[in-house]
This record gives sequence, structure tokens and C-alpha cells, in this order.
Amino acid sequence: MSNIEKWIERAESIVGSGNVLTAFEDIEFFSHDEYAMEEFACMPAAAVRPGSEEETAAIVRLCAEMKIPLTARGGGTGLSAGCVPAARGVVLSLNRLNGVVDADPDNHTITVQAGMALHDLYQHVKEMNLFFPPHPGDEGAFIGGAVAANAGGARAVKYGTVKRYVIGLQVVLADGRIANLGGKFIKSSSGYNLLDLMIGSEGTLGIITGVTISLLPPPGVSKTLVVPFADVAEAISVVPKILKADIMPCAVEFLEHSVIRCAERLLDRSWPARDGAASLMLILDGRNEDEVLGQAEDLAAIVEAGGALDMLLAEDDSRQADILELRSMLYEALRPGTVELFDICVPRSEIAGHIGFIHELEVRYGISLPTYGHAADGNVHTHSLRCRLDDGIIGGDLPGWQEMHEQVRQDLFADAVARGGVISGEHGIGLAKRDYLKAMSPAANLDLMIAVKKALDPDNILNPGKVVLV
Amino acid sequence: MSNIEKWIERAESIVGSGNVLTAFEDIEFFSHDEYAMEEFACMPAAAVRPGSEEETAAIVRLCAEMKIPLTARGGGTGLSAGCVPAARGVVLSLNRLNGVVDADPDNHTITVQAGMALHDLYQHVKEMNLFFPPHPGDEGAFIGGAVAANAGGARAVKYGTVKRYVIGLQVVLADGRIANLGGKFIKSSSGYNLLDLMIGSEGTLGIITGVTISLLPPPGVSKTLVVPFADVAEAISVVPKILKADIMPCAVEFLEHSVIRCAERLLDRSWPARDGAASLMLILDGRNEDEVLGQAEDLAAIVEAGGALDMLLAEDDSRQADILELRSMLYEALRPGTVELFDICVPRSEIAGHIGFIHELEVRYGISLPTYGHAADGNVHTHSLRCRLDDGIIGGDLPGWQEMHEQVRQDLFADAVARGGVISGEHGIGLAKRDYLKAMSPAANLDLMIAVKKALDPDNILNPGKVVLV
Repeated sequence: MSNIEKWIERAESIVGSGNVLTAFEDIEFFSHDEYAMEEFACMPAAAVRPGSEEETAAIVRLCAEMKIPLTARGGGTGLSAGCVPAARGVVLSLNRLNGVVDADPDNHTITVQAGMALHDLYQHVKEMNLFFPPHPGDEGAFIGGAVAANAGGARAVKYGTVKRYVIGLQVVLADGRIANLGGKFIKSSSGYNLLDLMIGSEGTLGIITGVTISLLPPPGVSKTLVVPFADVAEAISVVPKILKADIMPCAVEFLEHSVIRCAERLLDRSWPARDGAASLMLILDGRNEDEVLGQAEDLAAIVEAGGALDMLLAEDDSRQADILELRSMLYEALRPGTVELFDICVPRSEIAGHIGFIHELEVRYGISLPTYGHAADGNVHTHSLRCRLDDGIIGGDLPGWQEMHEQVRQDLFADAVARGGVISGEHGIGLAKRDYLKAMSPAANLDLMIAVKKALDPDNILNPGKVVLV
Repeated sequence: MSNIEKWIERAESIVGSGNVLTAFEDIEFFSHDEYAMEEFACMPAAAVRPGSEEETAAIVRLCAEMKIPLTARGGGTGLSAGCVPAARGVVLSLNRLNGVVDADPDNHTITVQAGMALHDLYQHVKEMNLFFPPHPGDEGAFIGGAVAANAGGARAVKYGTVKRYVIGLQVVLADGRIANLGGKFIKSSSGYNLLDLMIGSEGTLGIITGVTISLLPPPGVSKTLVVPFADVAEAISVVPKILKADIMPCAVEFLEHSVIRCAERLLDRSWPARDGAASLMLILDGRNEDEVLGQAEDLAAIVEAGGALDMLLAEDDSRQADILELRSMLYEALRPGTVELFDICVPRSEIAGHIGFIHELEVRYGISLPTYGHAADGNVHTHSLRCRLDDGIIGGDLPGWQEMHEQVRQDLFADAVARGGVISGEHGIGLAKRDYLKAMSPAANLDLMIAVKKALDPDNILNPGKVVLV
């Protein structure tokens, strides 16, 4: 009996035979996430679906004992090959751990198992009449994965990313012990901040099985505005002025009109601004209509002085929903031609320069690099395409797109780092960006990361090969 | 020549002989912080004051080479014996590293050296017409120390603690290398979150030499309100209702009137509320008068329904300043009789229960345990006194106060943990709470902390003995 056959037998005794998958058609799904390049795909030797935290811990102990690499998997919506198994490794799917552990309206907290999909989490939170602000693009993501990647989303301007809301984690450590980090308290100076160390560690330091989230009351009123400008640089130059004026929008997205054509075709809907080449899309929220309209008035004066061609306030909820859907469908619309969706984050003052550089690359290589993103965060989404994009229509594959993609990545990442930014603002490093993180990190930073990984996972069992190679 | 004599000679060659202190009168100050108990005080073998980051790194390298324990020291305002040197160890004072490195209005950031006192930092930020929300009690604290303890303060309700604003750190590692963590970008999913690991690590994982802070625009208007209640339990029961109504005050403090007498005497000023036994003090802020008055109106309805005896809005800035000063002088007023100021943090719903327990202890032991704190954060400040307190007058020492203090600590910490809280919400563990942290932490958590400490400081050079004993 091979090592893996022995592992399967013992895993079955922990979770039941129906929850250890080995047939190709059952496990192919686990060989990749949404990252499009095939180069990082890897079939697992098996996939296991524990039904409880204790079963999860028992599986980790088994892997530790037998030195079998283990990759935790949530919704599989990642964009950096972060949940792809290691060679001869197994996948641990959290999809059966999807319940509410504790809903606590007095403390404004909810504790859920890590395998709960975001759309279910939003629903539970809504039933509590509370609000979990972060909204990464794909609601099929599991909360455990969103925490493991420190996911962001458009609302981070005012509300911050996932890590601001996670106040407690249950984590299975590399030796199979269960640790509870944080809790329902909201301030702590009691020992090392292991909670925030786990957040964003992509399953390499521990397997998140439970998440306690601090919630807010929902904003009473929220309004969506679209503000067109002659060009994207002008649009972006207005953003610091908005923030300086103490208007703290929930979201400030920039979009070039040439990019939005794709989503317009897909949804058969039109972006409200026809003039100009770029728009800012802003969401203002507040306690009541007066507060939000007061912000909108101040905003109008600022954008007008900054060269806005117009300021369109979505009159009703359905028009507001249309605009948000168009924005959120940009990724889906471009996806068929997309090799990689970048999520570079630069200091706010460097966004315009970084976008200018992207346009230079388009000219230099004769390609399209559709770009949009979170203007107030400096977080820029650029699609690397395998094909040409003409007026929103995705064409056939460009010859040599693989090499082109590799070159574009290197150029973009180098520009990000040169501007004092990072190569990932919200998607994570995974396997796809690991070698770039290494190349672009000073030795001291890299050594620190490796030291932490070795300290917490000395046998390199947990999602080996992701983030840093040890 | 002894080992320490050799160290002094070599340290002098790095920083100049005037910056290595060895005379008793020069170094006695470094033997303690503001923690009152003598038991943890320890004279350093020497104190060194580097004039640059490079000199700091050279001193750390020297200590690493010679295996001399090194404790970094900021303003010395800590309350947990966190910057007290180890036996035969040396102190590294950051007080010469007190400059602005970079003020960047476009990115709303300021980068300063770690030895800048908070009052200077607030001044520089004010000159930028920006706002650094955290306000720990003592403005003599250095920013590096505030980061090392993840300091909090009253404004954390709306704005969070220091860690929310720290986006970059320069840290000298245990081997003397300088690492730059984070930067001017505000989102990152690029590798392990070493930045937040350093925050709150009390100089045991690295020595912070520089801090980059993300700033906000200042609130246009802020108003202070005092709301008296019949008793403290009633006052606290109103707090969740305020938060639930999407009134997000900057601060929500609770105070018992019996406690405030001390500060009234000291300042010869009076607390505005005479009725009832306890008050909530709230600070509301917002973009303009209308926004804040709108919040105040909603607040009035809630507190009235919750049994408030009155709601007093400070009419002008000077009355507002009076109230804030009275609140902030509570610590100073009680200090002469204080053995230890606790900063327990419990889930918000447990505050009333925890305060009830404190009152039980007062009866059980026949002592006074003046208590006030951050009601919306669950962060409770209790003074353990060596003496009786009668109507605000500090009396003579109680017989057996040392044993009493030890008993009170154990009781309070056990109650905090039983309620799902932590023993320190904002002051840190230091030496004073280390053994309690150990006793109250599950083995897995303690092992994780020790593993991290050993990974980042294998020779146990950096502030040994604090937070965890390795």
C-alpha cells in the first residue's frame, strides 16, 4: 500500500469514506482556482471534506504525521493560484463547515464557520440588521478564504479591508492543535498579534476554521454618483481633493469608458455618462438623506472645480443597482480574454503615474490593458489579455501572448515597486506571484517571512510553496 | 576588562562617548516606567542614545554579537514595566530620533522617527491640517512606544487604536538589519503581515525606529456631552442602543461620580452633572454643525428612553475643554495612591457585569477600586490603590495593601478571562502582566507566541522577559 493509500484509509476513518474524494471528476475542480494560466494547476492526490473543526484538526494531525502536504480550500474564487495543491498533496475543502456558530446582536458580532460563502454571510448579517462592509467581487468566496487573502473590495475607502472586521479566528495549527485567537473584545494589547498574522497568510500558517466578525449598523442612506472627466488622469487628480474635504465616500472607483463597453454589451445596459473618456463612480453613505446630500453638494463643488463634465446622481435604487452591476461585471465581461487580473496597490499619489505607465505599455507592445479600480486606495485592476480588445469586443488570440503576458507582469510589478507600492493589494500572492514577491522583497523582509513560516509550520505541511518558498 | 566595559567602549565608538550613559544619576530614570510597584525596577548596566537609524542598527549588532540584552525605551510613560531593562542589560533610548522624515499631504501620510513625542506629532499633523485620531492619555509618550504597545485611548470607538493608522514601520531586527515593513500604500495582500506583528510586540521582536502614519482630515465640528444616570449599570446599558442607532461617537466614556471627586479637587473645577451616581461622557464629531446636532438629537431620544437624568451639551469650546480635562486628569488625581492602573478589555456586553464584580470586590475586601473607562470598547480602567479613598480624598496606606493588590489583580484578571476578555486592552503586558498572560493563555497560543519570539530573536536579545518568557 502506498503512502497516499494509507493516508486515504486513515482519512476515511476520520471523516467517513464519502468525504474523501479521489475520482478524477470529483477532484479536478480542486486542481485550480480562477487564475487562468494552466502552468500552476496541479491535481491533488485526494480531497477531504471534514464535517467539523475536530475532524479538520484530526486530518491536519494525520498529514503532519505522514508528512503529506495539505492545502485548505474555500470557494475556489482566488486569482493567484493560492489554493492549488502541492505535488502529491491533498486538498482540505471547508465546504461542509458553513454554519453560524454564534450571532450576538449585543456585541454586534457574528461567528461563523470558515466555509460559509459570502452571500450567505451577508444574508445572516442582514437578518441581524447589521452590516459587514467589505465586499470582494465574488460572493461565492468563502469567508475563510476572504480572511486568508485579506480580501478588499470597493468599500475599503471608508471601511477598510476584511482585517478591520475580523476580531476572532479559530485556526488549526500545523501540529493539529486548535487555537482560538482574539475573541469578542475589540481592543487588545495582550501579547503578539497572531490574529493579524493569520489574516492574509493564505493557509500557509494555519487553517482557518472559524471567524468572528465585528459588525456595524447599516448606513441609513447610500447614493451612487457617476462623474465623467475628459481623461482618467484628470479624474484621478480630483480624488485627493475629495478626501481632503472630509468627504469620506464608501467607494471611489475609476473607469475608462473604453473599458466599460464590454460590460455594456454583456448586460445590454449603458453607462450613464456618455461624455469624456473616464468616470469616477462614487458611493456616498450616511445616517440620513440630509447627511448624504450635504456630502454630495460639497462633492459637486470639488469635482466641478477639478474639471468634471457632469455629476450624475442615480435617482432611484434601480438606477443605482444598474450602475453598480455594470461596474461589478467588468471582470466577468473581460474574463474570456483575461490571462491575469492584477491588483497592484500604489500610494494614492502614484495612481495617475502608474496608469500612465500602463498606457505606455499598451503603445509599446500594441496590446490592450484594460484598467479600472479603487482610486482612493491606490488599488489598480489591470487585465492582461491574450487577445486584442476593440471597442469592447474581445478578438482572437494574439500571437506570442504568453511571452507578452510574462513581460507585462514584470513591467507592471517593477513599476509598482518603484512607486513604493506592492504587487498585490487584495488578491494575495499564492503561487502565481510568489517568485515576484521574492525578487522584489529586500532580503531582511524575505528572511522574516521565512522565519515565521518555519516557526509555525516546521515541516512545511500547510499549503507549501505559496507566498514564500522555504 | 569586563564584558560590559568592552561593550561600553565599543558603543562609545558608535554613538560618541557623550551618548553612552553609565552614571547612576543619568541611568536611574531608565530603571522603571510609570508602573508604580518597585518589584520590577531594574538598573541598566548602561544607556545608549543613538543619533540615527544606522547607529541604532550598529548598537543592536553589537548587542547581538556580545549577547547583551537590549531594551528599547521611548517616553517611559508605560504602565506595565515594558521598557524596564533586563538584569545586566542595557537601555537604548530613542530620544534623539525625534524628527519628521517625510510629511506627505498628497498621500495624507507622515513618517516620523520613533522617538518623537506624541505632543510633537500632533503639532506636525495639525500643521498639515490633518488628523491623527488615536489619543492615549499621556502626550509625553513617544510614537514608537505607542506603536510598540498598540496604544488606544478614548477615541478608539469611532477611530480604532494606533494600529489602524500605522501603515509603515522601520524596524531594526535582532540581527541588526534594518527592515522596512509596509509603506505609503493602504492595502496589501503581499506576504505575511509583519507590520501588525511588530505593532504591540513591545520591543521584543524588533526595535521600531520609524513610523509611517495614515492621517484623516480633521472633523469639522466636535461636541462633548455629559449624560448622568442613577447608577453606572444603567449608564452602560444604554451604550449598545447608541451604537445600534448608527450614532458612532468618537468617544463614550463612563465615570462614576464618586471617582471624579478626586479630579474635581485637584483642578478646582466641577463636573457638570450633579444628579445621579454615574455619567456617560460622549464626544460626537462630524463634518459640520448640522451633522453633529442631528446625531445629538437622536442620542437624546435614546438616552432619555434609557433613563438618563439629563443631557448636558457643552456650549462652548472652553466648557468642552474643562470636561475633557476633568476626565483626563482622573489618572493623575488618583496616581499618588495608585499601585496599578488596569486596562482590562471585555466584550462590550460584559462591561456592566465586570463593573458589578469590581464593586463586589470593594465590599469583599473593604477597599476602593475607582473605575472608569471606554464604555463602547469594553475597555475598563480600574485603579488598585494602596490606600482608602473617601469622597475623593486619598488616605493613608492600608495595612497589607501589597497582598491585597496581588489578590485584586488575580480576581480581576480571572473575571476578565471568564467573560471572554483580555487582561490588557491598551497598555501592554510588559513584565507586570507576563506571568498572568502565561497562566491565562491556552498552551497552543503560548507556544505560538514563543515560536514567533524564537524565530525573530533567536538569542533573546530584544527586551528579554517581556510579554512571554522563552
